[in-house]
Amino acid sequence: MTTATLTLKDEFPGLSDGWHYLDTAATAQKPQAVIDATVNALGRDYATVHRGVYARSAEMTLAFESARRRSAAFVGGAEEEIVFTRGATEAINLVAQTWGVANLKAGDRILVSMLEHHSNIVPWQLLRERTGVEIDVCPLTAEGAIDLDAAEAMLTPAHKLVAFAHVSNVLGGVLDVRRAADLAHGVGALLLIDGCQAAPRIALDMAALDCDFYVFSAHKLYGPTGIGALWARKALLDAMPPWQGGGAMIDRVTFEKTTFAPAPQRFEAGTPMIVEALGMAAAMDWLAGVGLDRAERHERELAAKLRDVLRKRNDVTVFGPEDSVGIVSFAIDGVHPHDLGTILDEEGPDGQRVAIRAGHHCAQPLMDHLGVPATARASFGLYSDESDIEALLKGIERTRRIFG
Amino acid sequence: MTTATLTLKDEFPGLSDGWHYLDTAATAQKPQAVIDATVNALGRDYATVHRGVYARSAEMTLAFESARRRSAAFVGGAEEEIVFTRGATEAINLVAQTWGVANLKAGDRILVSMLEHHSNIVPWQLLRERTGVEIDVCPLTAEGAIDLDAAEAMLTPAHKLVAFAHVSNVLGGVLDVRRAADLAHGVGALLLIDGCQAAPRIALDMAALDCDFYVFSAHKLYGPTGIGALWARKALLDAMPPWQGGGAMIDRVTFEKTTFAPAPQRFEAGTPMIVEALGMAAAMDWLAGVGLDRAERHERELAAKLRDVLRKRNDVTVFGPEDSVGIVSFAIDGVHPHDLGTILDEEGPDGQRVAIRAGHHCAQPLMDHLGVPATARASFGLYSDESDIEALLKGIERTRRIFG
Repeated sequence: MTTATLTLKDEFPGLSDGWHYLDTAATAQKPQAVIDATVNALGRDYATVHRGVYARSAEMTLAFESARRRSAAFVGGAEEEIVFTRGATEAINLVAQTWGVANLKAGDRILVSMLEHHSNIVPWQLLRERTGVEIDVCPLTAEGAIDLDAAEAMLTPAHKLVAFAHVSNVLGGVLDVRRAADLAHGVGALLLIDGCQAAPRIALDMAALDCDFYVFSAHKLYGPTGIGALWARKALLDAMPPWQGGGAMIDRVTFEKTTFAPAPQRFEAGTPMIVEALGMAAAMDWLAGVGLDRAERHERELAAKLRDVLRKRNDVTVFGPEDSVGIVSFAIDGVHPHDLGTILDEEGPDGQRVAIRAGHHCAQPLMDHLGVPATARASFGLYSDESDIEALLKGIERTRRIFG
Repeated sequence: MTTATLTLKDEFPGLSDGWHYLDTAATAQKPQAVIDATVNALGRDYATVHRGVYARSAEMTLAFESARRRSAAFVGGAEEEIVFTRGATEAINLVAQTWGVANLKAGDRILVSMLEHHSNIVPWQLLRERTGVEIDVCPLTAEGAIDLDAAEAMLTPAHKLVAFAHVSNVLGGVLDVRRAADLAHGVGALLLIDGCQAAPRIALDMAALDCDFYVFSAHKLYGPTGIGALWARKALLDAMPPWQGGGAMIDRVTFEKTTFAPAPQRFEAGTPMIVEALGMAAAMDWLAGVGLDRAERHERELAAKLRDVLRKRNDVTVFGPEDSVGIVSFAIDGVHPHDLGTILDEEGPDGQRVAIRAGHHCAQPLMDHLGVPATARASFGLYSDESDIEALLKGIERTRRIFG
């Protein structure tokens, strides 16, 4: 095969010769730049933030707040609209347990889709238990995209929130966020977007997308574990009550009455993920250096190529929309995805090993919809190239021979 | 001065010649061992946990769960009693919003002390707003320890929880946890201990302490930011409802009904702090290598020495109990703590700089009680030695000369 793809593998100490990592949708490997930023933040530059009267702490505070500005710029939002969270999951729970509890009541409705990750289902179910809201499920198109025509038909003034994935973590399909926002706003609902799989693959601009909440995790964005962010419109954040209490989120504490800091600090109780914030900013710098336009093209090309070659086999079912980005789920007749994953992980005669994901991908309702207990999923990152696809295909051949 | 103290500064890349870091109670510097563990986890060994069918992910899962066992051993508890949280603050909020909401009702009472950190006050105030529980405040002894005689007199069968700091982050006094547990249990209440300042300084044994919840943060324990833990008795954890929903904390998800994983996974929604868990385990290994007994002796000796030399000056007030550990708050007549901190941060004629904390230390009620807006606080770590005390004293002299 000829290749027009990026060749960035050398920047990733987690990648080694002969190991083909195709599980980037689960978590991305880290470029050396992120590791270096982490080492400096943990070592040479380490201090707490926001409280020290000494220079090292003041410098770390500047770096930490600079990471917030970096994150805001990354999504095309404003600095005061970025709340650092442990990841996308915590960000959605934060919205559910603050905005949701403050604004939703029994009889109000939330629309999610059939393909959502558990992190965009279970927080709303917990909110349902607490408030009596109802949850509706938007179906998918035949090829596995969120069916916005169906959403349009389903939405009513009782709907207060629509919560959709920007890019499906199983099928790789890309949502038309702007249309989803228009539909939600048309009935007076807000739109929350789970951007975990989109943030590493698609340039983001909150103004253009016109959503109300956007969440993502750094570890899927070539950044550290333990951090992510909630972007929310300033007016929404300003009106949201606190969730977790503690240091840094207060204004004045007495036992009788405590007053709280303005957003985003109000939502960041305790010593924050200082080192992780700097690591996430380094990941965003690195990704911006590669270029999000190149990233999207790269991820679309690899997904299209893999879909093409898989479909040439008559023993493979490929799931999801044609124009997917970076993620391809498939099934091989007569081979359980876990068996495929296990055999791919074993070294082939050519010394190559391939890491894919096999399972429900934290999307059990989608598995139920597809009528399978699990899929095999190959997902790409900026370090992926055609050699990874070739190795996967050789591994599938080997598996085929074993299973006859 | 002669010294019998540890000399570990060389293991800490965050410490540099001539810089005397006396803000370890805010956050500890990291030994190279923790940085190395982080680099390996982010790079060479990086993978997600719990889900991959490939060897790298299986190995990372083993390392992650080994970090849970390490944490359990560190506190003398069981593996299934450790929930990884962002830190102590999140751990207390978790208890308040799960155990608290499920078990407390209007009219029930919680006893906290006058010296608690905001993280052990505000979560209970948020719970008060949600459930109508009442909060009582245990006074301090004249020298600034939690007055357990007063607690004994205050506790009634209406009290369902006592929440105290093991070591005061401002005054350094050490709680008799066992007696507090006996008092709490005597009226049928549970005992939650904020162990942030104790965990790096005192060997822990949950069975001996007999508390019910114990929380701590890794970043004060020579470990990474972004992680900490809740230890809770298994029977309590097993009965606590979920708090945050998402991946990894579920058993089976359908839109109609979701069932949850057993504890501790039920409380760990989403991709966990993988790298941070390994870093925290490395910090615990490092600390155990030094020895907690040596750590406590070291921290008691340095605190006692600093108290001694400060008290020889007639312009200094030293707060807190005589037998404090690692933390000394003080005031200099006519010099605001912030001014002291600022001048100490400037390089003296001997090229030395000192980093102390000046402020309310996230303990505004205690400041109100002491009748000061702020204190100066020097706090020690295992890398601290008498040279740090000498530099602080020289800096105080210099400040004195400037303020006349």
